[in-house]
Amino acid sequence: MILYGERNPAPNPRRVRIFVAEKGIDLPETRVKMRDREHKSPEHRARNSLGQLPTLVLDDGTAISESVSICRYLESLHPDPPMFGRNAVEAARIDMWIRRIEFQLMTPVGMFWRHAHPLTAALLTQFTDFGESNRELYARACGWLDRELAEGGPFIAGGDYTMADIVAQTTVDFAAFTGLALPEDATALRAWHERVSARPSAEAND
Amino acid sequence: MILYGERNPAPNPRRVRIFVAEKGIDLPETRVKMRDREHKSPEHRARNSLGQLPTLVLDDGTAISESVSICRYLESLHPDPPMFGRNAVEAARIDMWIRRIEFQLMTPVGMFWRHAHPLTAALLTQFTDFGESNRELYARACGWLDRELAEGGPFIAGGDYTMADIVAQTTVDFAAFTGLALPEDATALRAWHERVSARPSAEAND
Repeated sequence: MILYGERNPAPNPRRVRIFVAEKGIDLPETRVKMRDREHKSPEHRARNSLGQLPTLVLDDGTAISESVSICRYLESLHPDPPMFGRNAVEAARIDMWIRRIEFQLMTPVGMFWRHAHPLTAALLTQFTDFGESNRELYARACGWLDRELAEGGPFIAGGDYTMADIVAQTTVDFAAFTGLALPEDATALRAWHERVSARPSAEAND
Repeated sequence: MILYGERNPAPNPRRVRIFVAEKGIDLPETRVKMRDREHKSPEHRARNSLGQLPTLVLDDGTAISESVSICRYLESLHPDPPMFGRNAVEAARIDMWIRRIEFQLMTPVGMFWRHAHPLTAALLTQFTDFGESNRELYARACGWLDRELAEGGPFIAGGDYTMADIVAQTTVDFAAFTGLALPEDATALRAWHERVSARPSAEAND
């Protein structure tokens, strides 16, 4: 089994790296250099027709892409500690939170990066006004998540650190890399971010 | 257990309705009228702070939102026929396909609806040029999915009809509602669409 990934700040490969560190899994990783466009090469497209990272290739050649799907598979091999829930209700709630983070937080961050960041301007046609409008969407989503954490917490899906935290943590850190900081007054969200950033897995980088 | 949903063309409530029809589950559904903004009412926000549909409320009051997460929970109660895979590899591959459909197809459809459709113009500030650019993104994503189905198929994740088909079917049908048709030359994708539309579950509407 080989993981094809990339170093930070690429947020999706980082999700798997944090997950693997939390589980204590020894997973060989091959770097695919995005700066050299290796992820768009025929070799990598044979693993993932979308030319995206990360991709996990099993010993029989089966390829699994999408960070969360890869972690879901690894959870079946290494159930402890559980990161996708201990029963059906927990699993559904964690899945809900993963999706909420993707759609409420990661979508505006991705759109800001895609349409307003100078580093992507050279590669792609941008709609800058639209791109800039995602600053407010991200801030609003952070405000919502802050209220949720103030009422619930200490982690995204409740009492336990789960895959939803990894998805949120990599999103918030990538947002900061693109220039989108957490709102000053989002105190519960900031406390959560300090909490997850203090875990050794936050430093995982291959 | 009560499902709070909405009628067609709302794509997310429809996903659960198709799933329930495929499984033969008898699930009471309460309609939350989006036209009357009932989904943004305090009553519904108490179930789902984002004011979105659908939400499943369990007998103990636990609320599960997000169409796919609701179906994942229902699968645990009604495992047959399996719609999220029969083993860990299938589950990961189906999860991957669900995410690919959400990000590659549903995102441009949602952005087109949000930023270029006259029905949302009255409610929201639109970036129309950006919105219109999603026509091409959707067409390109359909071309990619068409090639995948031509090589694989007959269903999205391979040989079996799964949750990935439901996510794709509701996306393609909602796209058509917004004015985004399947490309004429996407013959494998069109054949797949006829295949899933011929199933009795496609007509499920409460």
